[in-house]
Parts: sequence; structure tokens; C-alpha cells
Amino acid sequence: MSTKVYVKSEFDFIHSLRRRSPASLIGDDCAVLPKDAATDLLITADMLIEDIDFRLDWTKPEFLGHKALAVSLSDIAAMGGRPIWAMLSIGVPETIWKSDFVDRFYNGWFELAAECGVELVGGDLSRAPDKLVIDSIVGGEVAKGRAIRRSGTKIGDRIFVSGSLGGAAGGLKLLESGERLNAEMTTSSDLLIIKQLKPCAQLAVSNILQTLQLATSMIDLSDGLSSDLAHICSESHVGAIIQAEKVPVDDDLQRVFGTDTAFDLALHGGEDFALLFTVSPENSRDVPGACIGEITESGIDIVDGDGTRPLEPLGFQHFN
Amino acid sequence: MSTKVYVKSEFDFIHSLRRRSPASLIGDDCAVLPKDAATDLLITADMLIEDIDFRLDWTKPEFLGHKALAVSLSDIAAMGGRPIWAMLSIGVPETIWKSDFVDRFYNGWFELAAECGVELVGGDLSRAPDKLVIDSIVGGEVAKGRAIRRSGTKIGDRIFVSGSLGGAAGGLKLLESGERLNAEMTTSSDLLIIKQLKPCAQLAVSNILQTLQLATSMIDLSDGLSSDLAHICSESHVGAIIQAEKVPVDDDLQRVFGTDTAFDLALHGGEDFALLFTVSPENSRDVPGACIGEITESGIDIVDGDGTRPLEPLGFQHFN
Repeated sequence: MSTKVYVKSEFDFIHSLRRRSPASLIGDDCAVLPKDAATDLLITADMLIEDIDFRLDWTKPEFLGHKALAVSLSDIAAMGGRPIWAMLSIGVPETIWKSDFVDRFYNGWFELAAECGVELVGGDLSRAPDKLVIDSIVGGEVAKGRAIRRSGTKIGDRIFVSGSLGGAAGGLKLLESGERLNAEMTTSSDLLIIKQLKPCAQLAVSNILQTLQLATSMIDLSDGLSSDLAHICSESHVGAIIQAEKVPVDDDLQRVFGTDTAFDLALHGGEDFALLFTVSPENSRDVPGACIGEITESGIDIVDGDGTRPLEPLGFQHFN
Repeated sequence: MSTKVYVKSEFDFIHSLRRRSPASLIGDDCAVLPKDAATDLLITADMLIEDIDFRLDWTKPEFLGHKALAVSLSDIAAMGGRPIWAMLSIGVPETIWKSDFVDRFYNGWFELAAECGVELVGGDLSRAPDKLVIDSIVGGEVAKGRAIRRSGTKIGDRIFVSGSLGGAAGGLKLLESGERLNAEMTTSSDLLIIKQLKPCAQLAVSNILQTLQLATSMIDLSDGLSSDLAHICSESHVGAIIQAEKVPVDDDLQRVFGTDTAFDLALHGGEDFALLFTVSPENSRDVPGACIGEITESGIDIVDGDGTRPLEPLGFQHFN
């Protein structure tokens, strides 16, 4: 298409889009738009593409339907919002269309939607040449001015995560190495694979944080702790220091992969969809999550028995 | 993925989704959601997939960016709404990412967005294995209760189209036969190809119809006159009769393809993105469009010099 070769990173590209868009609309998990006098509208879109974001021989149609919705619900949770409606655009290859895949996919989608009180209001259906493509769009609501952004934290705030980390990345590693889900789903490996294939959006924790007005900033852990923390620090113009021993590494992950690999996956593995958020020191008691560190003036570091070292963002990026 | 072979049509499938969704939300060009006391929110999503909905060697990146937005703007126009914001999810193969394609694509998108006062508020960027995938999401507004639906027409209403028909389908036919756009873009063939590659959403006509409260039902001509008229008749539980000599066939189309083929493309060819709407008999003077027929009790027929025959919906369907 072009004779010129551009070297651009995903982040550079997204920054270039932000320059062409209204201030403060791009750069959070959702866009925040005015709805009415009391309410803001949250809206998010997540594209999942076969063989990039999922593999059909690794998952079940019901799980994929669940995950397509869950990743967008997680974006709503990350802003402290309540999901209300959803749209789903899917591009379906002929062979998949002729199977029961699409019906089972929607069964998984609707089961989660019913649990969360979300209604399907539209979308698009297209034929695709060879790979299944899904774009999940969810709309939600939040009290006016109360969306929890990445940009709100201050020096001294405590850093929390709402769940154990690395499980979904461990599941991905197992799938890549050839393991598949057992019918019983009882082993540690199964539990990790389930975390990868059927993640949960943490709407309940988000709701508590919103009700108690605890979080000064928030993001969902989709790219991995090191990258998502870097997003918060970048948007808030601050740094952070993480206490290694406080990072809640997934138990099953440690059993299957051992301490070192498990810790690495907890730091850099994506798709846990736990919430990463900050709380001011005076509100830091009775927070639903594990305190793993503190916001600093600049730099992102991690402290363990060997001392302090920079925590590089090694999480997921589509393009380097 | 499945041992069972299902035979289902696209329309059956969409009907099955409607049974699982709140009444009246699916079945129009946009979902209509309550916004505030005075306003409803319109929202639409359109997925465009390489080699299904477009071919990269047929178009220019700028045209494709324009078209991705235009098809969704047309959905907002079809409901009598005003577009406000947009999101764009794109899945990009590595080779395209490394070219200037994405920048040029966004240039085309932003040019049209600026013309229409639409702001980019979010979306998603994913790597794709081999084909470019685009999901265009546009949000708009309409005065409360004033969205123009497919379901509102009554027996005796006059049927109008807001522009000439068949041009985009003629352009597609030329591209399929190997013709390409000339740099000058002055021949009839060029003009047809432009109609296919860079369609216009009829926001101005929609605005007049909304302001004067003329239209009792409306749809945009994306699938083709015969199919889109069938959508209106089905949603309104009515029939229609079309006067063949009143159908405004595209002039360039007649020059390039001759009268018969041109007429066929005007009846069944998709992607013109003109508006098809109905107006009550008492309001049928001074309407911005061509009156092509009348709403009847049942059946969809066309009348020409040879008599009356059924007008079968032969327009576009992704799956049969």
C-alpha cells in the first residue's frame, strides 16, 4: 500500500489521536460524556480478533461470549461506573456461521449480561473472510463528575489491587504450551486457564469504591501491573514505588509455575481484570484490596530484599 | 468447532436476538436510549471487514476512513438525529501498521468528522492477523420521542427517496470488472466508483425532515431499495406499491450500463445511503425527495408499462 516505512509505537499513535480529539476524552478506560444534570455516560469499545486475542481451539463459544462482554464491563468498573447497555459487532466466517458457534457464543454473552443487568441494544453482523472478529461496546452511567480517572492520584496516595495477579497470564502460558481445560475444572492448571478464558469484571469492588468515594485514580489490569501502573503514573504525572512482598501473587500460579515465574507473571502478565487504584493515606484503612505501594514524585520502582530497582512496563502491547 | 450443521438466515438470527432484548431497541438503524428530559441518545455500530466490505486495492486509505464514518453517520441520519461523537475500533495487520495507511485512514476520517461536527471519544486498536477490520460507532441526539423509526408508516403514506439510486452498486460492478479510479475523477465511471468508495450521509435532508416533522418512517438505503423497503414494510406491518418510472435512476449509471441494468441496480443495489422515507398524504408537497410510490395494506409490488409484479427483496445480505 505504501512505499514508505513508518516506525511508530502504539502509544505514540494513540497520543497522536489524543491531539486530534477533545481534551480528556481519550486516555481512560472509558470515554466520559455528559448525559443529564445528575449523570455522566461512560462508553467503551474492545475489539477481540481470532488468533490475536483468542484461539478457537483453546476456548468454548460460551466462554468467548462471556469474555467479550467481561472485558468491556471491566472498563466500566475501572471508571467506578454501572454498566447499562451493550452493543456487539461480530464478523463471522462462513464455516463458523454454519455451526452452532454463534448461538453458543451469544448464550455465554447473555448469561453474563443478565447477571450484570446489561441489555443488548444493537450492533452489527458481518461476514468475515477467515477469522472471527468481535467488537464489544458497553455503555454505563456514573454520578456526574464522579468517574474515577487515571489522572487523579497524588504523591503519598497508597496503591491497591483488588485481587490476586498473574492467573490469567499463567493460563495463557499453559494454553500456549499445549495444555487444555479438563472437563472437571478442578486442578490448579484448570483454574488458571479459566482465569484466562472466562475473566470476571470487578463491578462489586468498583461499586464499593465509588459509594465510599475511596479511589483517587483507577484502571483495570488488562495490560499487566507494570504497564497499567505506568498508565496511571503517566496520566497523573507522578511516580510509584511497589513493595514486592505485598504483591498478591495468584496461589495456583505459584503452585504450577514456582515462585519466580509466578512473580514475574504477576508483575507483567495481562488480562487479570483486577482493579488497580489509589487511595489517599487518610482513607487507606478498610479498603477492599491489597496495598502494594505508594505514589511518589517520579519514577516507578519496586523494592524487595535485594533493594530498589526500576519497574519497567513489560506488559502487553499490540505494536512495538 | 461443531458437528451439527445449522441452516439459519441472517434475518432469522437477528430476530432471535430481538427476542432476547428489550422491546423496540433492535430493528432500527440506531438504538434509541433515554438521555435526559429533552433528548434521546442514538447509537449505531457498523463493522467493515477487508475483502468482504472493501478491498484495499480498490480504494484509498482516506476514502476508507471517510466511508467508515459515513456509513454510521447515515444511520444517525436515518433516525432524524444529529451525530455528536464517535468511537473507532480497528484491527490492523502488521504490514499495514508499518505503512502510512493508518495515518491516511484517520486523515479521511477526521476530515469528515470535522465537517459534521463529530468528535472522536475513544475506541480500540488491535493487531489483526491478515485482514484490516474496522468497527465504527457513532452516537447522536434527537429530541425525545422524535427518532424516526422504520415502524411508523401507515396505509396511504407516500414513499420518497432523497437521491438518485444505483450509483454505488454501479461503482462496485465497475471495480469488480477491473476498472479503477482515474486521477481526474471526471468520467461517468469515475463518478460511480466515487459513489461506492466515498459515500455521503444525508444529514442535511434528515435535518429538514426532522425539523418539519415530515417523515412517518425512515431508513437509509444501505442494503438496496427492494430490501430496505421490505424492512420498513415489515416493521410497520404494511405493504407498498412502487411506480417504476418514478424511481430516480442515477444518470451516470444509465450512461455506463444502459437503461435495464441501471434500473435493476437502482432497485436492488446497496450502499447509496440515500434516505428512504414515508410522508402522510397531507404533508406530501414540498418534500425534499422523489415520490416513488405509496404504502398499501400488504405485499410489495412495482408497476410499470407491463403491469404490476411483486418487488422481491434482492438486496444485500451477508448470510443466506
